[in-house]
This record gives sequence, C-alpha cells and structure tokens, in this order.
Amino acid sequence: MDVTPKLRLYVDLPLAEGQVVALGTEQSHYLLHVMRAQLGAQVALFNGQDGEWRAILSEAGKRTVRLAVGGRLRHQADEPDLWLLFAPVKRARIDLIVEKATELGVSALLPVFTRHTAMTRVNEERLRAVAIEASEQCERLTVPDIRPARPLDAVLADWPAERRLLLLDESGAGQPIVAALSGGVTSPAAVLVGPEGGFAKSELDALGRLAFATPVGLGPRILRADTAVIAALACFQAVCGDWRAPPLRN
Amino acid sequence: MDVTPKLRLYVDLPLAEGQVVALGTEQSHYLLHVMRAQLGAQVALFNGQDGEWRAILSEAGKRTVRLAVGGRLRHQADEPDLWLLFAPVKRARIDLIVEKATELGVSALLPVFTRHTAMTRVNEERLRAVAIEASEQCERLTVPDIRPARPLDAVLADWPAERRLLLLDESGAGQPIVAALSGGVTSPAAVLVGPEGGFAKSELDALGRLAFATPVGLGPRILRADTAVIAALACFQAVCGDWRAPPLRN
Repeated sequence: MDVTPKLRLYVDLPLAEGQVVALGTEQSHYLLHVMRAQLGAQVALFNGQDGEWRAILSEAGKRTVRLAVGGRLRHQADEPDLWLLFAPVKRARIDLIVEKATELGVSALLPVFTRHTAMTRVNEERLRAVAIEASEQCERLTVPDIRPARPLDAVLADWPAERRLLLLDESGAGQPIVAALSGGVTSPAAVLVGPEGGFAKSELDALGRLAFATPVGLGPRILRADTAVIAALACFQAVCGDWRAPPLRN
Repeated sequence: MDVTPKLRLYVDLPLAEGQVVALGTEQSHYLLHVMRAQLGAQVALFNGQDGEWRAILSEAGKRTVRLAVGGRLRHQADEPDLWLLFAPVKRARIDLIVEKATELGVSALLPVFTRHTAMTRVNEERLRAVAIEASEQCERLTVPDIRPARPLDAVLADWPAERRLLLLDESGAGQPIVAALSGGVTSPAAVLVGPEGGFAKSELDALGRLAFATPVGLGPRILRADTAVIAALACFQAVCGDWRAPPLRN
C-alpha cells in the first residue's frame, strides 16, 4: 500500500477518481501559505462518506486552487455511534473538549444548558471548525456532527430510547465506569458531562429516574469537566468501542 | 461529618491540631486577594503525609498571614503508585499534561527526552506549581513528584524491574489497552507517551526488548500526545486503579 500523504483536508463535496475539487479561501490559504504546498503536492481528501482519496495540487493561482482526485486510499468504514452531551464552558476549555472528543471518535457533539451552566451562548460554527481541523489531524474519515445548543431538559424529552446515556455523576453515587461499561453497553450510546458547578440535586434526581440513563463514577478525585469528558470517552472506546481491536495501519 | 471548606491549600509543613501555620507570599496573595478570604475563613490544608485538616484564617496582616489548624478532616490513605513518563511538548500542552495527570492520580511525573523530542529544556519548578494547584483543586491528599528531565535511555537503564511499563505505541503494533490492563497489571506501574513525532524505529525496537515493557494501542485514530496521556491514565485507573471502587464522598 502507498504511503498516505501528510496533508489532509476535509471537503464537503462528492469524491471520485478523476474529479477536480476547487478549494475555498481558507483551505487555499492553509494549503499554500501555512503548509507551503507546491504545485504537484499530494493531499489526502475525505468528505465523511466516500472514504479517503489521494489528490494532487493541480492549480495554485491567486484566485483558484484546485486538486485533481486520483485513487482511493481508504474505504469508508463503520464507526461507533457515540454522542457527547456537555455543558458549555469558557472558550479555551470548550475548544479542548471538541478537539479531544473528535480524536476520541464521537459521532455527534450536543452542547446542553443545565441549571448551573455559566455560559448562555455557544458559537457552533467555531466548534465545527475545531472539529474539522481535529478530524483532519487524527485521520478520521468523518467529522463529528455539531448540534445546536439546547436545554438539557429538551434534549432528554425527545431522547431515542435505545441509546444508553452514561451520566457522569460527581456526587459519588454512580457505578465505577468499567463495571457499568462491562455490563453490556453497546453503540448507540452517549456520555453526559455536567458543568464545573456540577448538576443540581433536582437534575440528578430527574436523570436518575430515566430508564435509559446509567450514573457512572470516575474515582475519588474531583475532575474538571474537560478531564471527565476525555476520561469517559477513552474508557468507552477501550471497553466497548473501536479500541478493542488492534488498529490496522500500514 | 462536617462539610469540607472550599478553599484548599497544600503546605510543605507538618500538620497537627493546635498548630499555627504561616503562609508564604504567593499563597497569602491567593487567599486574601484572589479568593478574598476574610479573617475567620475556613481553609482545608494538606501536606501529602498527615491527611487533610480544617484551619481558620487567624491573622491576615500585610506582612503575615496565619492559619490555626483545627480538627482532621481526612486521614492519609494509600494511592496507586503510577508514574507518567512523557516527552516534553510546548508550554500550553505540557501544563495540560501535568494538570490532567495530577487529576488522574499519578504519583510521579518523569519528563524524558526521546530521539524526536523537539524541546531541550523543562522548567520543573513551573510544572511543580501546576501540579500543586491541580492537587488543591481535585482534592488529592498528595502532590505528584516532578522528577528532573532526563534522556529516556538513562531512565530505562536504572528501571525498577517490578514496575510494569505501558508503552503507548502509535505504530499499531501494541495490544488493545484494556486487553493489556486486564492481564493482571498492578501497581507499581508506569505509562510512557512519546513526542508528537512518535518514537524512532530504533527506540521502539529497543523498548520492545525490555522485559518490563508492554506495548499498548489506543485505537485507530492518531491521538495527540496530551490526549494519549489522559486516555491511557484514565483506562489504567478505571481497570486497575482507584476508580474500581465507588468513591466514598459525604
């Protein structure tokens, strides 16, 4: 198998051999001026649906940057269907949550407002840009879906019953996470992490009554929200997700 | 049981009931001007050896800030003996690694220089300050030990044979992490994470020949070094460490 090019871009366009793809302003700038790609440079392209393709920088003009699509590098494959519900936090930490959740293979990110959430707005467009960049870097074939921020109550009100919700319960009442995951959790699943101030007692009580929710604990120390997100997603992938098989890399 | 005070400080002094503790300039500033503590405020103190103690702000002068130690809140308890060996990365990411490793309960942090490590110096004093702050916030009773940065070869040359080393092998040749951890890994243990550029082939070959080293994999995506650190430590604590028992919180 040929070596995959180091430059990797997500494009929201169909991909097939022989196609020519025109890049937008930001990706053109990134390719030519940040990565200093020259005419003829090899780039890997993916669009979340058609796998990964080798492409060649075939036009590098001031106005137009084009890539000629060659052979397919990887076929699209199934990925775990894992959502992350998280209370928005301030800018640096929310970007970190999106970057890490993308690397850890979540399929959708759902910002949710809880009783003690300090933030009242979320810039979903910026989060989408962070998710795209992280997807390009971590060699995913998809970009996680960034859902519009909504109140937690509203998200739970139309919850799909077959999707198990692992609720990170910092009160200490939850099962140890590996015990909960070993008890037959499968995809589709979701992880819910509350705000730095924790869930309100009334929220925890209401969550505890939901048949699809399992409260889990992450040990004796108090974790920041971003740490808890990464830790819980890693445990899910390691015990129930796509870390169980050795990766097939060239 | 009484509620633990929200202000929490690490002090490098013996702690016992009736003692009076004088704070240094930085902690005095933090307590009075950042946290705006008033005379009589309750503070929890720990020193890594004597458990956690309730104290009262008994003097809040310009020159001298003193705390009177009252009753013991928690006894010192055993913690997993887990080292983290990591290749130093640039400032924001190395601080993140130290903060997260502290929250995730590592006992010692060992910065190691590998073939592809870009950094040549480490400010251990700054890392120690980050570790102390994270220990205060996550309610640990200890502060992880920050060891002086050394070449990886030198650290491995005097390795204690009974300490299992989990080597994060991004080449894809390692066992899935949960399979490796379920195979009877116990404390003392260590996790080794390479630099962003990965290990050199010769380093991986040499590591593979060490009887105490187990190469492990973290799934099909390429993880940044900081993500890999957090993910591996979380898996260790969840499967073999102190996340297996439900936490005993009031």
